[in-house]
Amino acid sequence: MSYNTFGHLFRFTTWGESHGEAIGCVVDGVPPNIALSGKDIQPYMDARKPRQSRFTTQRKESDKVKILSGVFEGKTTGTPISIVIYNEDIRSKDYSNIANKFRPGHADFTYNEKYGIRDPRGGGRSSARETAMRVAAGAIARKILGKSINIRGALIKIGTKEINRNNWNWAQINKNPFFSPDVKAIKDWEKYLNEIRKKGSSVGAVIEIVASGVPAGLGEPVYGKLDSELANAMMSINAVKGVEIGAGMSAAELTGEKNADQIRKNGKNVEFLSNNAGGILGGISSGQDIVVRFAVKPTSSILTPVKTIDKNGKNTEI
Amino acid sequence: MSYNTFGHLFRFTTWGESHGEAIGCVVDGVPPNIALSGKDIQPYMDARKPRQSRFTTQRKESDKVKILSGVFEGKTTGTPISIVIYNEDIRSKDYSNIANKFRPGHADFTYNEKYGIRDPRGGGRSSARETAMRVAAGAIARKILGKSINIRGALIKIGTKEINRNNWNWAQINKNPFFSPDVKAIKDWEKYLNEIRKKGSSVGAVIEIVASGVPAGLGEPVYGKLDSELANAMMSINAVKGVEIGAGMSAAELTGEKNADQIRKNGKNVEFLSNNAGGILGGISSGQDIVVRFAVKPTSSILTPVKTIDKNGKNTEI
Amino acid sequence: MSYNTFGHLFRFTTWGESHGEAIGCVVDGVPPNIALSGKDIQPYMDARKPRQSRFTTQRKESDKVKILSGVFEGKTTGTPISIVIYNEDIRSKDYSNIANKFRPGHADFTYNEKYGIRDPRGGGRSSARETAMRVAAGAIARKILGKSINIRGALIKIGTKEINRNNWNWAQINKNPFFSPDVKAIKDWEKYLNEIRKKGSSVGAVIEIVASGVPAGLGEPVYGKLDSELANAMMSINAVKGVEIGAGMSAAELTGEKNADQIRKNGKNVEFLSNNAGGILGGISSGQDIVVRFAVKPTSSILTPVKTIDKNGKNTEI
Amino acid sequence: MSYNTFGHLFRFTTWGESHGEAIGCVVDGVPPNIALSGKDIQPYMDARKPRQSRFTTQRKESDKVKILSGVFEGKTTGTPISIVIYNEDIRSKDYSNIANKFRPGHADFTYNEKYGIRDPRGGGRSSARETAMRVAAGAIARKILGKSINIRGALIKIGTKEINRNNWNWAQINKNPFFSPDVKAIKDWEKYLNEIRKKGSSVGAVIEIVASGVPAGLGEPVYGKLDSELANAMMSINAVKGVEIGAGMSAAELTGEKNADQIRKNGKNVEFLSNNAGGILGGISSGQDIVVRFAVKPTSSILTPVKTIDKNGKNTEI
Repeated sequence: MSYNTFGHLFRFTTWGESHGEAIGCVVDGVPPNIALSGKDIQPYMDARKPRQSRFTTQRKESDKVKILSGVFEGKTTGTPISIVIYNEDIRSKDYSNIANKFRPGHADFTYNEKYGIRDPRGGGRSSARETAMRVAAGAIARKILGKSINIRGALIKIGTKEINRNNWNWAQINKNPFFSPDVKAIKDWEKYLNEIRKKGSSVGAVIEIVASGVPAGLGEPVYGKLDSELANAMMSINAVKGVEIGAGMSAAELTGEKNADQIRKNGKNVEFLSNNAGGILGGISSGQDIVVRFAVKPTSSILTPVKTIDKNGKNTEI
Repeated sequence: MSYNTFGHLFRFTTWGESHGEAIGCVVDGVPPNIALSGKDIQPYMDARKPRQSRFTTQRKESDKVKILSGVFEGKTTGTPISIVIYNEDIRSKDYSNIANKFRPGHADFTYNEKYGIRDPRGGGRSSARETAMRVAAGAIARKILGKSINIRGALIKIGTKEINRNNWNWAQINKNPFFSPDVKAIKDWEKYLNEIRKKGSSVGAVIEIVASGVPAGLGEPVYGKLDSELANAMMSINAVKGVEIGAGMSAAELTGEKNADQIRKNGKNVEFLSNNAGGILGGISSGQDIVVRFAVKPTSSILTPVKTIDKNGKNTEI
Repeated sequence: MSYNTFGHLFRFTTWGESHGEAIGCVVDGVPPNIALSGKDIQPYMDARKPRQSRFTTQRKESDKVKILSGVFEGKTTGTPISIVIYNEDIRSKDYSNIANKFRPGHADFTYNEKYGIRDPRGGGRSSARETAMRVAAGAIARKILGKSINIRGALIKIGTKEINRNNWNWAQINKNPFFSPDVKAIKDWEKYLNEIRKKGSSVGAVIEIVASGVPAGLGEPVYGKLDSELANAMMSINAVKGVEIGAGMSAAELTGEKNADQIRKNGKNVEFLSNNAGGILGGISSGQDIVVRFAVKPTSSILTPVKTIDKNGKNTEI
Repeated sequence: MSYNTFGHLFRFTTWGESHGEAIGCVVDGVPPNIALSGKDIQPYMDARKPRQSRFTTQRKESDKVKILSGVFEGKTTGTPISIVIYNEDIRSKDYSNIANKFRPGHADFTYNEKYGIRDPRGGGRSSARETAMRVAAGAIARKILGKSINIRGALIKIGTKEINRNNWNWAQINKNPFFSPDVKAIKDWEKYLNEIRKKGSSVGAVIEIVASGVPAGLGEPVYGKLDSELANAMMSINAVKGVEIGAGMSAAELTGEKNADQIRKNGKNVEFLSNNAGGILGGISSGQDIVVRFAVKPTSSILTPVKTIDKNGKNTEI
């Protein structure tokens, strides 16, 4: 189970099982002399934590970040930064009743096929908790980038319910439990999710990420295209089943003249009259907003019984 | 402009500009003692070539593959295989009138931003012709895999016109100029494309790839997920703006119980009652068909004039 | 300061400054189901520790290894193994008087040139303490290899005093403070080193590593040659200035017929009549003992004053 | 047989068997807008070619370099540069009498163990002819570096005969068939080699490479040390058995105060009073000359019969 490292010049290696003693990462390639402390990372960890809302997982972790290396007197030294979070909510026993069954929609079956191990502790590395360390590494990346690049995300669709893009307001996303940029969608979503919860079911979602201020010229033009790297990164997040750049899958429906973002000179600046390209042309950033969208499948941990098999290959339900 | 290499154990490096003297690739990591000659590669090159149909680009290349190394007496030796195709249809002059303008929807602008070069020869490496060498490397990969793994593709949507999946018939895809698996869609598509052509326009498409016979257990569970690698690969193809695995973007709309592919034992075999996962769970193949879909934006080389700027930053049309 | 990762399929990333809070590593690519606990690693850490002898550095660390991930119920799971050692002997203050001077023979000057930082805590990552984590990762590698491959090392030269190879006895190396395989050399070495110590000086050494039981066929024949990889690894150890395989530098003095190890069939086995190749031909292991030798320069932390400059570029002594 | 790629940001992939149709390489990572033509590469290929002297191999190749991609109107474009040399002197038949025997000191035995193939054409990729492509890639690297960095090499020892370093004169190396910097050594070497040739024998050599003008700060401090990378590179050259940086193996014999190169300020410049470090401290260049030395074993293609086995495992001579 190698390949726990992500990135090129800036790269991090994550480790730790969801229900093991600790999780952590080693961030390599950080330039020296950048001011950094746990306080730069903690807010992102806190924002990532399941909120105190009925709509999310009930696991509780304080997720206190500890930096063990790479920082000296408040500044990075250029050496690898080791980050650790000790797990508090270790409840292996909770999983005892499912230890022998393969949960449909989970990685239980494929892990067992690959490693010959049925680790009942939440699927080991396949748990969404692994993403905590991506958030930590991302917080350091943001510190390196500084304020010129602004990366924001929003939930734009829950199940079959999509926002109205005309109502888009970035200021709203941190003011509602859904990270919705459309304040008018919230009531509808609450009602919709309550019904789904009552049925013991779950539903998927679509998230949109927008990076503003990215300079033109980033990305390699053939196998290291910026959009390839982003697709790779997004698809490596648990439960993601589709990734779109700009117009995405609907680019297929556009005509050539509608799709090609026309270019104008506006004073000293180059302007595009639309952004179907999602800020990337030929794999290279154009200076427009980078727009990435991805779909997350519904959680498979539901109350409705579904058919499966156990470790001995016998048909059963879970 | 590095990053012209793709793959891990089996990996290839492509080179050559669309309108330069030749294109080629070096394929590394091929096991020894595999029977291989140009005849194993040529059929795939021929299948890739724009057919003699009105619906595609008019460039003509015989695309004769030559193997320069790595094969001895009809068998691979384990050393790198160097493949070359000499370009015949070198028409740099055709581009003279556009040499100073940035074509919207093309990589002209971003290449110029990155490299400070406006290479008028079809955008250099950003041309779709680069994919010829992926096809050649893929033909070798297929030879290594043998017949146990069957990889097929079909065009399932042109513009707004989608096939009826109930009519899916793999036997049809090579019998029509659209690679459609739905014979009933063809007439409609012909009429639709003729209209678009008459308007001097173009339209996008969606392609679906299915790999059958892939054993369970392939893929690394965190940053080398099989679906991440596939998303990376597909997104690195020119003009691709979205990639889906299994249910893809529509996974967002499914409920937990509908999405989770239930598991049954059927005699000795493990069976899944659906394939929303597209054959991949937790980044690892499950033994089901691997299903990948991607959207291609419409070609931006159209007859309709669009707004753009020239090398001097002056507003113009193209 | 990237590049803190070593290895390909089995690879580890080390982190931690010599005089920071902790040091550690993440070991990736370990197969599942291998019995592993701290007890498999600790003996190697203990053997690495400066012994209670007058001839070595006086730093005292208990070097207790803690495994934070990748092991479940005494067996590896295939996930990354995170190892940490908390530093005890943190004496940054000791370095205060040298904080402003560049120590000749140390990395102080080059680190300052590269990072613009003069970290007085023992040179940060350039300390020999970084090798502790190589030893930990190596202990895991040995556990994977099992007992079929036997890797041993010996000190064969101190300063100008070399062992007599005719007296070579592996059983002796752990019975004397010098790891000498020649018991007759010890007395001479003790006297020699005492004299050097009295002068406030130091001296270098040559170490020989022998790996027995390595199967034929390991190593890639061009840029991933087994000997290239070994040279890379040995040269990355602090203070190493030369690396030899088999006959090494003295291969230059051999004639063709003396150098080429002749081959004989002995029953079922292939035998070589000598081992000038050091077990590697064309970059690939031959099945003979792999023999690697490297020279370590004398420690530059000596009592004799030497000329240098300070941070302000003024001439001084240290 | 993967691993035919060398380098990081600037990297090249070589291909081609010594006695196949052609050899070549793909050089990736070359910046755009650098003036480049075959004329920049050819002189290095010519210098590499065995000279018309009695002392070297008799193979004759004109080694005319052809650039197939990556250069447009005399300047690099940033895309990969494909270089090819068509082999002329293809004499597979010459090897027919040795096709069934494993030549001692050659890679025949280990290749057969690894690949199960006995390719009689000069050992395929293990031939020294593979280095031709390193030279071609190196010529491009020099073009990128420009004239500020000067890399030169000299033969300093043949068999047991070493030059007198007091006679070192770089101006001499291209004026004698031995690349000797000591004009006084030549006569002695001629006589010595003539005797060895008469006996049907061969002998090894030591080469020293000096890179001047390398700025301080290059190299990564742990696993990407500049000296590790150099050791890796040198050891990957055929027949190399030892690599030294600066004082090299003899650093073991130095005392701490002799070894540590003292530092002085000389006007605006930092000066070192010696160069035992070979220009590298803690894996990072110091600004001094980089000094690398390596030993080449004697060619094993000699007239004296030696013992070996054949493909069927029978004892024989060659």
